[in-house]
Amino acid sequence: MERLDIDLGARSYPILIGPGLLGDAALLSQSIRARDLMLVSNVTVAPLWGPRLRAGLAGLRLAECILPDGEAHKTLATASRVLDALVEARLNRDCAVLALGGGVVGDIAGFAAACYQRGVDFVQLPTTLLAQVDSSVGGKTGVDHPGGKNLIGAFHQPVAVIADTDTLGTLPDRELAAGIAEVIKYGLVGDGDFLSWIESNLDRLLARDPGALVHAIRRSCECKAAIVSRDELEQGERALLNLGHTFGHAIETGAGYGHWLHGEAVAAGMAMAAEMSRRLGWLGAADVARVRELLGRAGLPVDPPRFGRERMLGLMRMDKKVKAGRIRLVLLERLGRAICTADYPDEALEQMLDDLVGGADA
Amino acid sequence: MERLDIDLGARSYPILIGPGLLGDAALLSQSIRARDLMLVSNVTVAPLWGPRLRAGLAGLRLAECILPDGEAHKTLATASRVLDALVEARLNRDCAVLALGGGVVGDIAGFAAACYQRGVDFVQLPTTLLAQVDSSVGGKTGVDHPGGKNLIGAFHQPVAVIADTDTLGTLPDRELAAGIAEVIKYGLVGDGDFLSWIESNLDRLLARDPGALVHAIRRSCECKAAIVSRDELEQGERALLNLGHTFGHAIETGAGYGHWLHGEAVAAGMAMAAEMSRRLGWLGAADVARVRELLGRAGLPVDPPRFGRERMLGLMRMDKKVKAGRIRLVLLERLGRAICTADYPDEALEQMLDDLVGGADA
Repeated sequence: MERLDIDLGARSYPILIGPGLLGDAALLSQSIRARDLMLVSNVTVAPLWGPRLRAGLAGLRLAECILPDGEAHKTLATASRVLDALVEARLNRDCAVLALGGGVVGDIAGFAAACYQRGVDFVQLPTTLLAQVDSSVGGKTGVDHPGGKNLIGAFHQPVAVIADTDTLGTLPDRELAAGIAEVIKYGLVGDGDFLSWIESNLDRLLARDPGALVHAIRRSCECKAAIVSRDELEQGERALLNLGHTFGHAIETGAGYGHWLHGEAVAAGMAMAAEMSRRLGWLGAADVARVRELLGRAGLPVDPPRFGRERMLGLMRMDKKVKAGRIRLVLLERLGRAICTADYPDEALEQMLDDLVGGADA
Repeated sequence: MERLDIDLGARSYPILIGPGLLGDAALLSQSIRARDLMLVSNVTVAPLWGPRLRAGLAGLRLAECILPDGEAHKTLATASRVLDALVEARLNRDCAVLALGGGVVGDIAGFAAACYQRGVDFVQLPTTLLAQVDSSVGGKTGVDHPGGKNLIGAFHQPVAVIADTDTLGTLPDRELAAGIAEVIKYGLVGDGDFLSWIESNLDRLLARDPGALVHAIRRSCECKAAIVSRDELEQGERALLNLGHTFGHAIETGAGYGHWLHGEAVAAGMAMAAEMSRRLGWLGAADVARVRELLGRAGLPVDPPRFGRERMLGLMRMDKKVKAGRIRLVLLERLGRAICTADYPDEALEQMLDDLVGGADA
């Protein structure tokens, strides 16, 4: 088992990575202080991994709330169902909410935990690669609004992240690829060596080689932990982890939640960010080709839907990084180094959107 | 104008108290950094004080969300309406939510501000005595659940509390009395001298003497500011401000939200806490009589509804102070000194409930 620690003072917590963790009663008992638990999962994951977890939690008081599967259900109404279940089970402030599933389950359950009695303990038990490398770490929780992704939410750190890598064995190929998109993001944002490692080991990742997966998870979490420890509430540097997300969230919202997986939209968004960076003179054409090739090899989309420029801009304006009406973009100064900037010519963005998603009249 | 400061490091903020503040453009501009605003109010308060505030905010971008009036509407569904309005107005993370109204408006608007884009600025503009002395200060926000009061919420501090005391002129008598209940609470919890002052000046408060009201507001906010500064997230001492609230919330929930005003339920709850304290040998019969007389003189109820003991206990068990299944009570060691304790004989509580709300079979 690998262990990493997120250093946030009184809100510090461990990330535990390895096989068999969901059934490890001693580990679970050590990581979860509460004795009254609410398990939140979905109809796909609960039958697969619920039995192992229930065995690991034998002896504790365990209520359950099983949600429908998919981003289309990441709504305030679904979070409200979790809150109803907490009240119905008569759980008090000393309970813990456990999220068993991917990013959607973690985001909803974490938001419910943040709101219930103004905040109860929360444990992430991520079962997708995307959740294990990214969404379960860092305390961002929330739900979507028809007007935009993750517009309703809270910063609420988990008390532990327990990533049982056995769960990746039951993950559909498309979900695995979506997780690899976020792994590639960590290489692009801040670690050129890791990017090279991913390029050399992509086939092992796609073949679900346990050693390669554990390394990718650990290195991604290390990158995220370092940034989150320095900027928990996204006042600055943390925004870099949003590489590809301004474009990606617009794609997800515009296409209707659930049609694009989050990681797929981020992949196309990263390709757009690379192209924009090229147009600003920071990346060369070969860099952009390298990004697109890596994403393509992973089976990820690199081109956005043809929404048309104005619709795309409208969707992007609901981004949480917008300040004083101006869209801030996370771009690449070079491969392995991202910046967040509002200092770009409007025409460059408009021209790129004309070329990639269609012009004003598309 | 009086000014007090809540000292919470990066989350510090001023409380401004005085007449005419809602129309003071310079003061508002200084206190509210955002330029894009969402005014949240209700159908009763908006027509009375909206015009003064709008004049004070002339030149800023101001969207509005006007809610129905009353505790029965303090629900997740109503908070969701505020969130919809924020998205519809296309407000970004650099906006501010303004709450113009009493405790219900402040709690809902504050919760929406806490959740929108994971937290935007929030300004309290309390227009009831209860909100000016208590609910607008300290960052507790939230909504009710059919299963219990304030079960869904967040700690989210305002950037400013601006209490225009002119608004107390349009307050119904019953609402004024409900606010006085919380003023009396501050005397009982931590300041025997203030309690004596209230006894001597109750008639002036009931006659809405501006000087007496400003003193009562300032002194109450001082008490609260001191405690909140030491215990923002209610890990300990802050629970003392819940005197009368464990019984009071049970009364509000059991009677159906909106039938008892919050301050009325707290008044009856404080009388119950005093009686319980007498049964534990801490207060004398004369102390209890003194509490009941003061509350009664203010026009407040001192007896709970006859719910029956078991129903009352069931309602009390959803209290946020419950720990390891045990109801913790805020009681009085003497008038002017409260403690929060789980160390009482169950029989004493049960016997008191038998006497005051009816026995197990009531």
